[in-house]
Formats: sequence, structure tokens, C-alpha cells
Amino acid sequence: MNIVLLSGGSGKRLWPLSNEVRSKQFLKLLCDKEGKHESMVQRVYRQITDAGIHARIVVATSASQVEAIRGQLPKDVDIVVEPERRNTFPAIVLAASYLASRKKIDLEETVIVLPVDPYVDVAYFECFRKMDEEVQKGTADMVLMGITPSYPSEKYGYILQGEQGVVTGFKEKPDEETAARLIQEGALWNAGVFAFRLNYLMEIADQYVQNRDFDDITKHYGDLKKDSFDYEVVEKTKSLAVVPYSGEWKDIGTWNTLTEEMEEESVGYAVTGEDCENTHVINELSIPVVALGTKNIVVAASPDGILVSDKHKSSYIKPYVENITGRPMYEERRWGEYKVYDYIQYKDGTKSLTKHITVHAGMAQDYQLHHYKDEVITVVNGSGEFVIDGCLMKLSYGDTICIRRGQKHTMRAIEDLQMICVQIGEEISEEDVEVYEWRW
Amino acid sequence: MNIVLLSGGSGKRLWPLSNEVRSKQFLKLLCDKEGKHESMVQRVYRQITDAGIHARIVVATSASQVEAIRGQLPKDVDIVVEPERRNTFPAIVLAASYLASRKKIDLEETVIVLPVDPYVDVAYFECFRKMDEEVQKGTADMVLMGITPSYPSEKYGYILQGEQGVVTGFKEKPDEETAARLIQEGALWNAGVFAFRLNYLMEIADQYVQNRDFDDITKHYGDLKKDSFDYEVVEKTKSLAVVPYSGEWKDIGTWNTLTEEMEEESVGYAVTGEDCENTHVINELSIPVVALGTKNIVVAASPDGILVSDKHKSSYIKPYVENITGRPMYEERRWGEYKVYDYIQYKDGTKSLTKHITVHAGMAQDYQLHHYKDEVITVVNGSGEFVIDGCLMKLSYGDTICIRRGQKHTMRAIEDLQMICVQIGEEISEEDVEVYEWRW
Repeated sequence: MNIVLLSGGSGKRLWPLSNEVRSKQFLKLLCDKEGKHESMVQRVYRQITDAGIHARIVVATSASQVEAIRGQLPKDVDIVVEPERRNTFPAIVLAASYLASRKKIDLEETVIVLPVDPYVDVAYFECFRKMDEEVQKGTADMVLMGITPSYPSEKYGYILQGEQGVVTGFKEKPDEETAARLIQEGALWNAGVFAFRLNYLMEIADQYVQNRDFDDITKHYGDLKKDSFDYEVVEKTKSLAVVPYSGEWKDIGTWNTLTEEMEEESVGYAVTGEDCENTHVINELSIPVVALGTKNIVVAASPDGILVSDKHKSSYIKPYVENITGRPMYEERRWGEYKVYDYIQYKDGTKSLTKHITVHAGMAQDYQLHHYKDEVITVVNGSGEFVIDGCLMKLSYGDTICIRRGQKHTMRAIEDLQMICVQIGEEISEEDVEVYEWRW
Repeated sequence: MNIVLLSGGSGKRLWPLSNEVRSKQFLKLLCDKEGKHESMVQRVYRQITDAGIHARIVVATSASQVEAIRGQLPKDVDIVVEPERRNTFPAIVLAASYLASRKKIDLEETVIVLPVDPYVDVAYFECFRKMDEEVQKGTADMVLMGITPSYPSEKYGYILQGEQGVVTGFKEKPDEETAARLIQEGALWNAGVFAFRLNYLMEIADQYVQNRDFDDITKHYGDLKKDSFDYEVVEKTKSLAVVPYSGEWKDIGTWNTLTEEMEEESVGYAVTGEDCENTHVINELSIPVVALGTKNIVVAASPDGILVSDKHKSSYIKPYVENITGRPMYEERRWGEYKVYDYIQYKDGTKSLTKHITVHAGMAQDYQLHHYKDEVITVVNGSGEFVIDGCLMKLSYGDTICIRRGQKHTMRAIEDLQMICVQIGEEISEEDVEVYEWRW
């Protein structure tokens, strides 16, 4: 079995913890069985293992999420990077072609596609076995997962089913009355989980791109129709079956729904008065958050900002934060992470940015240069090696290095390397970087 | 007329904005007539001027507040520093001896003593003229200000008066019934404002210290009884009069009372949803605070921490923040200010601290050395001069200087000088400083 996880959308609904580079699925606010924090992505990966499913896992995502996924999932998970954002149909075709041409998967094998962030029971993944079985038995060209509805929701899509799990149609966002009738007739919610033989999709892809080769599809990605997989594939498939799942199934994409699933009332440095009611504090800063006498409130603090919101109102956050521009203040990278302390723009047009950087032991940054900024780096903990314009030197506690614009540089951590980096220049951005090759 | 302002107490009731070195009276949260922010100290100083009073002003305080007062009040205000904290009687004697022996004030002149942070109308200060008149006429040895009570409070002291403003007694914190009766009999609240001839107090001081000289009293400060001025002087004075004041008079020492007097709903970078009610945001950080759907809430954020509190509950803050130890993260100094970005303690026992420092144009730091920490300073804006172990050099945008422990150093700003300072060492504290003399 092959699993394709769709890791999409940079959203601001969990601002200030989610931003352009850190989507909600990477926030470590949930707890695993040992009480260790885990993100939604990590939870899904763990649950697949817990369900006893041995599958090849591919994550389809955009370039901006690669470093975060690399940092959170094991190395044997493959990542397929969309050359541009083009909706789910092109993304799934790209992942399928990766399995077919790069991984040389037997075209008869089952592929199961799902979003990377459903909040579900392990039983959800156990359901995958049944879906695989149906695909391999040839019950249908495509097998969907259907969630047993708990109320006549107006915001979901409904899968209508006939005898023995045969799908007879779809109904998108019906009114409440219609929804109630559909449920009585056995309709299920569409969870966006699809199972099919690899070959089935590759044949559809043939209509758009001449060659099924991964490199070819990457190159001609723009030729694939910018549409959803539901519309472009599922609804056009004649032979469809559905497998029901009746456990927990939730989108925890707002502070209101997310805090309901948190095991702790606070994460990070927080002090809450005993007169607080239904108050959650999520604090990623190193300074304390003190909450007194608050009711139904979520407080979330990160280097990007501080949110104090009534829980129900928290789902209406978007318009208030979309005008808060500014660079991301925290990023997880392949090699470690950085946290911006402050970014200042001066009247004379110059700018400065101060950040704390951690490079994990054994990891190295890219060999790079900047055109518009100088950097002063002070090692505050750990040790490593540093290269500037081809010269290698040791790096340890107390060392300060000045890197002028135009100088190529990289560093590698021996022990976890913590540094304070002061950048100054007329233009300070993460995009001001030119990468070169360096062999350690 | 001479005015002694008592600037006391480092309190945590306005945490996280007030801390050990920044008392509530220095927070610039009020507005002057032009809408410019001012602190309680600055407001009192401005109101004295607005009342048309030309007086010599002395602030009696502890060493920890000197830099903040210097930064907020004009240079012609004298500061008398208590050698140790010993309650109001010794502090007022010290200030009086300063006026007598250092300023050579005529001993017949009036001294008016008051707390530095009452929230009052200008009329309060106009009342000083009448108090001065009564003192000079010889109506009584001591003239008090009495606040016209607005309700039978149980938490104030009452001044009982007979005919023509003669004080007949005091009643400390009566029950409500007694308070109501006292008010009917013409009693007034004791505002802690006292007027007397300089000589009157100096004669009392003679009982404790042989010499009235300021240096002598400073040296023998421990011999002065550690007691309040009310108890040690006022209550023992036989001839007392009172002058009434009936305008606004408030202690704005809690978030609840302070926000009532703020003209703006938010100070600093704040976004509040239109569904917020009675919500105040005070943000001293450079990242945004977003408040949505909150009611009767105060949010205060500073480099020391973040408070989210129901307004009424905010007066019970003390026990929740007194265990939050840690160094002050923001300080105003004589030469400028600093803001700590982060203070990290590592497993191997080393520590690092990163701060942003501003030295105002024309100002210079002390010539100093540290025993336990090294510093790396990067100039991010402005220009100045720097001295290290006796060598003078220019300092400008982009310069980085490394100061090892044991090296004497100082700097002076030509234009406002902004720097990022990274400190590393086994022990990082503001107390690790040895000051030397340097002549620019």
C-alpha cells in the first residue's frame, strides 16, 4: 500500500503560531501516548504505524514546507514538491508519477490519498486495509472513505450510497433539511480520502502530459488542469465504492477546536489564576504569560505576535491578522531552527535584524552568500565548524565572526550550535541568498 | 516654597510594566494636554508648573530609581538618595537636611511633602499656596491637606477638624458606620501631604542626629527611627491645621484604576476587534497584540512578560507574579535605555543574554569593566565614540567590538546610538560592574 499525504495551505487561522512557512499541521500542540508533544503531521504518521499499516509514505507539498516536514518526519518519508500551487489534482498526479517512475511501484498497487491533518482515531487508518482490499478485489475504480454523519451539517459534501457500498452520487453542502433526509438514506460525509490503483490515475494523467515520467510531469506541471481531484477525477469516475468510518473525525484548524483537543491547559511558560475558566495559554516565547480571571479565552504568543481571543470569536481571526505583514519570526528548517528577536527599520533607510539560530548536531547550513546584508554571529553554546570563502575554521563558545556581503559561508554543528546573529543592511530578507556547493 | 516628592516602592501590581527598577510612577501611559504620553511623575511635575507654583523640587528616593527620574524630569530637580530603605520619616528628614545644609534654604521657608504619584487635578497643587500661607502665618506647626470624602471609605485615614481648620485628632481606617459619622462631623481623608517650616523638622531631627548637616545625616541614616512620618512627626505635633481639597484624588496603582484614566484604548502595536468591550491593550513589545471578542480585559505586554487579566481581578495580581523571578528585561537609564531580547541558561552552566541598547545623543555610559561576562556589541544605527582600556576609537554603523572580561570600556553617542549587545559568561547580571573615572 502507498499513502500520499497532501500537506497544503499556509493559513493564518491559528495565528500567531501559524504563518507563511509554518502551517497548522506543524504545530506541536497535541500529545502522544507518552505525553510528548506532537504536531498534527506527526500524529497522523504515528497513527498509521499504530494501525499496523506498512506503507510507503509520500508527502505532496510546496517548497516552503519541505524543511518543516524534514524536521518532523523520519527520513524514509518521501517528499514530492509541487513546482507551483495548482490545487489537488495536479499535486496527486505528481505524487503518483513519483511512485510510478521514481519508486518503480507496481502499477497495480493501491494508492491512498488523504489530507495530512485530520484529527481522527487509529480506526480511521485501520479502515485503509478495507479500502485497499476493495481496490485490489476490483470492486470499483475508486474507493472513498465515508464518515458516518453525527448531525445534518450544511458545510460538508455527502456521498450517496446504494447497495453494498456502491456510490450513486454526491451532494455538496446541502441545506439542513436535505442533509437530514440524505443521512436517513445512508449518505456519508466525504472525507477527502481516496483509494485507487496507481495505474488508474496514470492513465488519466496521460490525457494531459505525454510522458508519465516524474521529471516530465514536473516540467509540464502547468499543463495539468488547475482543479480539485474531486472534480477532475472522482466525479468523472463511473465505478465508485465507499467504505464507512464512524470514529472521531475533526478539523482542528481554529483555536476553538484545537484547544478542545489539547490535553494541557497551557503549553510553555504560563501562570493561570485559579479563577480562570476554560482558558488556554500557548506560549512559545521565553517570557511568562500570566492569565487572571479570564473565561473562555485563548492566549497564544509566538515571536510573530500575541493573540488574546474569546474562543468562539477565534474562528473569525482572518481579517484582523491578514494586514499584519512582516516576515516570519520563527522557522523550522532542515538543519535546525531560528527565532527572530527583533527587526528594526531606521529612519535613514537601514535595517537590522537580530535572531537566535540553532543548528542541530551533525547538520549543516547551505554554503551561501548574501548581496544586501552583513552578518555578525556570536556562538553562545555548542561547537562546530565554519567556512568563509573556502577557509575552514573551528567554531566554539564565545567566537564571533563577521560575514560581509558577498562572502560565501556555511557552518556545521558538531554539538548543537546556538548562535546570536545580527544582520544589518539596506534590505534584509530570507530571499537574499545565493547557494553554492560545498563538500564537508 | 520647597516641594519634596517621595518616590517610593517598587511594586508588581502593574506587572509586567512595573518591576524592581521601574515603579508604576515611571510608566508613560497617561497623556498630557497635547496628547503626548507622560508618566505619573511627569504629570505631577507638569501640574505643579500648570498651577503656577515656583518651588524648589527635591525627589527623595532610593538609588534604584535615580536613573529613571533623571531620564524623566528636568535637570533642575534635585534627587536625594536614601542610603537604605527606612520608611518615610528618615527619608523626609534627609530631604529636609539637604535643603537646609546643601541648598542653604532659609529655615523659615515652607516645605511641602507629598507622594510622587497621586492622580489629581491642578487644583490640588493650587491648594499648596494656601498651605504655605497658613504655615507662614503661624496658624499651626504643621498644615495637612484633607481630601473631601466622596463615600464612607474603610481604607483611608481620617483627619478630624474643629473650628477654622484646627485638627483635633485622627482616625485610621474606621468601619463604615464610624466613617459616615466622621464625614458628617467634617472629617477629611488624610492625603499624606504635609506643610511645615524647614526649621520645625530640623529641630525634631536634632533628637536623633547630632548634626543637621546632610552628609552627617546620610552617614548616620541608620540612627533615624525606621518609622512613618505620620507616626513619628504628625501625630506628635500638638499644633495642626488642615486645608481642604475637593477635586479628583485617586491612586491609579492597579491595572483596573489605571486603565480608567487612560485616554486611549491601546498603547503600542495593537489590533482590537470591533466586538471587544472595555478592553485595554498596553504593548511595549515590537510584535502585534491582537484582541478579539474580549470583555473587561486588560492585556499588558513588556519584555518582562504578558498579562491577560479580567480588570477587576487585576488588583489581585501580586501572588501570581511574585514567584516570577528573573532579571528586569527593560530599564531606563540616565544615558538611555536597554531592552533584553532573551536570557538563556545552558545545561553546561554558561549563560547568554542578548539586548538592544540605545545611548541618547550626547550621553555616555560609565567607564566600567565586568568580571564574569564578555560582550560583543554591534552598532546597528547612529554613531559615537568608544573607549577600551584607554584607547579611543570612532564607532559607527556596522562596527562590531568584542569586550573581554576585565577590559575597561565606555561609549558616548554623537547621534542616537543603537546597538545589539550579546553577553556570554558563567554569571550575567547588572551588578557585575566596576566603575572607573573617564574624562571625555
